[in-house]
Amino acid sequence: SVNPDLASERQTASFSVEKLTAWLDGGVEHTQLRRAVVEAIERDPVFSRENQYFESQNERYEAAVRKAVHLQKKMDEMGWTDSGPEFKYIYRALSGDLAFLLHRIFIRSISMLGSDQQIAKWIPLATQHQLIGSYAQTELGHGTYLQGLETTAVFDITTQEFVLNTPNISAMKWWPGDMGRSATHTVVFAQLYVNGKCYGLHPFIVQIRSLQDHSLCPGITAGDIGPKMNFEHIDNGYLMLQNVRVPRENMLSKFCEVQPDGTYVRRGSQKINYFTMTTVRISLILDEVVIPLMKACTIAIRYSVVRRQSKLKPGEQEAKILDYQTQQEKLLPQLAAAYAFYFISDYLQELFNRGYTEIQRKNFDMLPELHAFSSGFKAMVTQYSTSAVEICLRACGGHGYSLLSGLPSLYTKIVASCIYEGENTILFLQTARFLIKCFMAASTGQPVPPSVTYLAAVTPEKCPAENKLDFLSPDIYTEAYQHMAARLINSTAAKLQDLIQSGVKKHDAWNQCTVQLAQAAKAHCHYITVKNFAETVEKLETQPGIQKIMKHLCDLFALHGIFSNAGVFLHDGYISGAQMDMVTASYLDLLAVIRKDAVPLVDAFDFTDKTLNSALGSYDGQVYQRLYEWAQKSPTNKQMSPAYEKYLKPLLHKTLSKL
Amino acid sequence: SVNPDLASERQTASFSVEKLTAWLDGGVEHTQLRRAVVEAIERDPVFSRENQYFESQNERYEAAVRKAVHLQKKMDEMGWTDSGPEFKYIYRALSGDLAFLLHRIFIRSISMLGSDQQIAKWIPLATQHQLIGSYAQTELGHGTYLQGLETTAVFDITTQEFVLNTPNISAMKWWPGDMGRSATHTVVFAQLYVNGKCYGLHPFIVQIRSLQDHSLCPGITAGDIGPKMNFEHIDNGYLMLQNVRVPRENMLSKFCEVQPDGTYVRRGSQKINYFTMTTVRISLILDEVVIPLMKACTIAIRYSVVRRQSKLKPGEQEAKILDYQTQQEKLLPQLAAAYAFYFISDYLQELFNRGYTEIQRKNFDMLPELHAFSSGFKAMVTQYSTSAVEICLRACGGHGYSLLSGLPSLYTKIVASCIYEGENTILFLQTARFLIKCFMAASTGQPVPPSVTYLAAVTPEKCPAENKLDFLSPDIYTEAYQHMAARLINSTAAKLQDLIQSGVKKHDAWNQCTVQLAQAAKAHCHYITVKNFAETVEKLETQPGIQKIMKHLCDLFALHGIFSNAGVFLHDGYISGAQMDMVTASYLDLLAVIRKDAVPLVDAFDFTDKTLNSALGSYDGQVYQRLYEWAQKSPTNKQMSPAYEKYLKPLLHKTLSKL
Repeated sequence: SVNPDLASERQTASFSVEKLTAWLDGGVEHTQLRRAVVEAIERDPVFSRENQYFESQNERYEAAVRKAVHLQKKMDEMGWTDSGPEFKYIYRALSGDLAFLLHRIFIRSISMLGSDQQIAKWIPLATQHQLIGSYAQTELGHGTYLQGLETTAVFDITTQEFVLNTPNISAMKWWPGDMGRSATHTVVFAQLYVNGKCYGLHPFIVQIRSLQDHSLCPGITAGDIGPKMNFEHIDNGYLMLQNVRVPRENMLSKFCEVQPDGTYVRRGSQKINYFTMTTVRISLILDEVVIPLMKACTIAIRYSVVRRQSKLKPGEQEAKILDYQTQQEKLLPQLAAAYAFYFISDYLQELFNRGYTEIQRKNFDMLPELHAFSSGFKAMVTQYSTSAVEICLRACGGHGYSLLSGLPSLYTKIVASCIYEGENTILFLQTARFLIKCFMAASTGQPVPPSVTYLAAVTPEKCPAENKLDFLSPDIYTEAYQHMAARLINSTAAKLQDLIQSGVKKHDAWNQCTVQLAQAAKAHCHYITVKNFAETVEKLETQPGIQKIMKHLCDLFALHGIFSNAGVFLHDGYISGAQMDMVTASYLDLLAVIRKDAVPLVDAFDFTDKTLNSALGSYDGQVYQRLYEWAQKSPTNKQMSPAYEKYLKPLLHKTLSKL
Repeated sequence: SVNPDLASERQTASFSVEKLTAWLDGGVEHTQLRRAVVEAIERDPVFSRENQYFESQNERYEAAVRKAVHLQKKMDEMGWTDSGPEFKYIYRALSGDLAFLLHRIFIRSISMLGSDQQIAKWIPLATQHQLIGSYAQTELGHGTYLQGLETTAVFDITTQEFVLNTPNISAMKWWPGDMGRSATHTVVFAQLYVNGKCYGLHPFIVQIRSLQDHSLCPGITAGDIGPKMNFEHIDNGYLMLQNVRVPRENMLSKFCEVQPDGTYVRRGSQKINYFTMTTVRISLILDEVVIPLMKACTIAIRYSVVRRQSKLKPGEQEAKILDYQTQQEKLLPQLAAAYAFYFISDYLQELFNRGYTEIQRKNFDMLPELHAFSSGFKAMVTQYSTSAVEICLRACGGHGYSLLSGLPSLYTKIVASCIYEGENTILFLQTARFLIKCFMAASTGQPVPPSVTYLAAVTPEKCPAENKLDFLSPDIYTEAYQHMAARLINSTAAKLQDLIQSGVKKHDAWNQCTVQLAQAAKAHCHYITVKNFAETVEKLETQPGIQKIMKHLCDLFALHGIFSNAGVFLHDGYISGAQMDMVTASYLDLLAVIRKDAVPLVDAFDFTDKTLNSALGSYDGQVYQRLYEWAQKSPTNKQMSPAYEKYLKPLLHKTLSKL
């Protein structure tokens, strides 16, 4: 039975939850397929995640391998293909709690960077799991700055082989997933040397473990890097190479090749070697960031209408905590952000698809924009969402801190997204470099990509809003964001030029502006996210019920951003203090409006209880019962601890005569 | 041998690290005692924490009990007393990784709330560990709002006993430490009923487990609440009571008592029952928040001069990451905050000592101020420090995410401090209620405590600073904080009154102002922290070297706060846009100044490697070697996973003929 406090929230929805779900899925047929896949996965006990909060790293790894192997069978059985739409639903149902995910990156990098012969040789073996691949890029001493990688691959013309080496401890590969215990093969990124000349970073397929008995191959040292904040199910590994030889054909050579005589041939931008990372950055936004954020919102919002604490009115029953303004102010902006980022993820995917088509045609013109966008949005969305999940966790008080709430593991996992696939600050600075270039170009009338033409646009000097309702106009707030982003880029570019003109060296000047450059890049991404949300709402004309609530969320996302970054809007007087009071008033009013639909808005994400895996977030809201029953299954309650016999009993038995 | 990149940082310190350490400790004799205690603890292998990142919840609990029992012997052996200065050093050396901490709260609450007879009976037994106590306040459905607790204690006049009951599932005690598996006794907070009349919450000593065989006493259901984000070593527990009878003498009765005939007698404010919480809040600031923050800073800053990444100047070696402005901007404000909060913790301790003396004399006048201060500062310091530790973690990139860095466990532990001992938002609102009251009183000329007289003070309407150097004047920035805090309290009080005058009911009006009230309370605490830091620096006249660097840190703490909360300073034009540019310039300049002393400033915290327990933060900076050696000891590298034989081998053996 559903907790009556939760049930009552569903009776007053201002829109159809089913319709919103279908729209989010891109059509009711997608919803049906998703539900069918999720149901098939959840019906199968091999995929159960119920005990994961009790398991050790070794147990988690074993379970992840079991699931990955079983999934292959399941997919054959169900007729699901790796490239079909089903995989994203499978991933969602399993919450990514699966081994061999880096194996997928192994496949992707060969598909993208390998020659036709390499694809023909390796892809069938890999897709049938007749080998297990990994992707070995990061080193113990080197992360996002790829040029700094130290692993070497020297071409030996006499044997037509590359000889790979780890020249010192900081060059040891460190972190690659699936490599610590599972992988038989990996794509190693190494500095290519031919005839003593370094040609920079290139990818090489290297076998690291025997297919016979899984022992390490000659010259290979490898193992697991030990405990982490999350990802216990993944065997992140280390790898040292000592004179490991691979044939010439093992260098991925779609875009560059070493010919038998040692001639180095390039067939495209060297930057294409980093393209796998660009694609990964874009796809992780939905799977690793937005969906976890949606889960956190679902858990925290459902719990917040079941939990009662203190009294709003004297003499009445204790109030649902979501009826407190402070709780609304914690959770509802995160809900709005979840929608905003869901839409921006769509936008990026489209941009990327266009770019990829061009690249397949060997047109690399869009690479800088794609790189800048994938970097900036990866950084912005992961940073914002990490903080959002943390807010959800803390908003659930003590129970949010129990692993059984599901929130701690969402947090400890999402926080990694700020670091992996490019550390966020470095990514923001890469976006900033692009923006500064575009700004310079735009100021001198040169053409720039459509997404940044606003840098040269003329906006009014003052926000025209006259009352708090004006701030519910997307034109008003989108323009405020545009003005603010353009101003930050403009003023940072000016500071940079001033420094250089005053004699500071270019690289020092850049460094002295980086705090502001990163801020400007973030502002740009924030602006595009608001604009894209407003445009998404506009296109919803045919579904007025959904359009109305989405408009509220868009307003909330935008005004929350102004309220919490007030300084950058007030700085040049574009928004005055009096207008900021209007923003605040409209923002706080919106909280009360959206609060009424809060539960339907998370119900529309359509997570099953098993997917959420949370005592606080289940559909029926039986929070306390679930916490109590689940806790009893904890290994800490399975038997009396040996600590009693060993330490407590001798201590306590001294007292028997005295009490 | 010390990593040369780290060694070079120590050669250029602008001050004596030893002198700073001694000053922080409150005198060189304290430093000596601390070092002696820490050394004695660390020399004893029972207290080793080296394996803790590899251990399960059961193993951690067993180790914590072992350490606690062993510590008793050690203390006897060394002549250390519980009430002596040694315990805080012991706690520091063990990083709180110890059982029976709630046992200490059990003792403290009996000492504070018990009658002389009760103290005489229970304290000796408890201090000699002849029973193990806990403190059972929070319930499954009730946390910070104590009046909502549902557990009942009904006085049975015929047997002269209290009958305790858990009326339903949400009334189950939930979370008390040491209660899940260890405790034999606990202080249960329950609603007292005499002759059908409820007298509110009172504390009762209840035995829950047999001293003979540790089995649960009749009427008791208890166990461990299962896995949490941290505190694996603590057996947080649940407890249900069914008609559990305790003698009349078991109600703690220093301030109130039920006499044999059922007469209820009060001897002081009922609020005194919450006083244990006030004292806990103040003492946790140093032990659970400031010291962990200092550790996080130590780890992240040392690592940031060992780690090299990317190039600052083309053609040069990769740069130390602490030489990047963005890395400085992440870490150095957190370092300044660690100092700021260390000083505010001192300030609070003094305030508390004064208050406690008065309370012992049955003068309760200071209670409201003490309560407001302990609430607001607990909330402000825990929130700020949690975010600071997270910044330190993320600033260390992927290696920060490894448990072996020590940072994840610092984070997952400190985040709990935002929730336990009062949820932060509720605490801020309690402080806000006090501030609004004082503001009202001050406006009408009534006397208010000295800490809040500023609410009625007249400040200039514009900040008088004319150039960026003016913002290095404590008068200038302290006044800016004061103005800002007073304005926020003033404007929120005005909004509240406007709402009430326009007919909104008082409790609704309050709720509609809570976002701004919480902000105002935080601003007040931030102001006092800045002011106290500036006053602390001023008193350092006799030690000019230390004074100089502390002055820089104070400036940084203050300007960072203005820079990152620009909106509230710009809002009414007190600081103009042009002045904010000066703040930004001074702030960024300071980063480069303090960067030079960053390592000496964390060295002065004087943590041993064993205390830090971090591969990244050790004194010698041998980061990569330590990570590699420690990872090899992980249980994931102890043997081949059963997953190989079960799942991988069958999969891979299909391929042998094909490669």
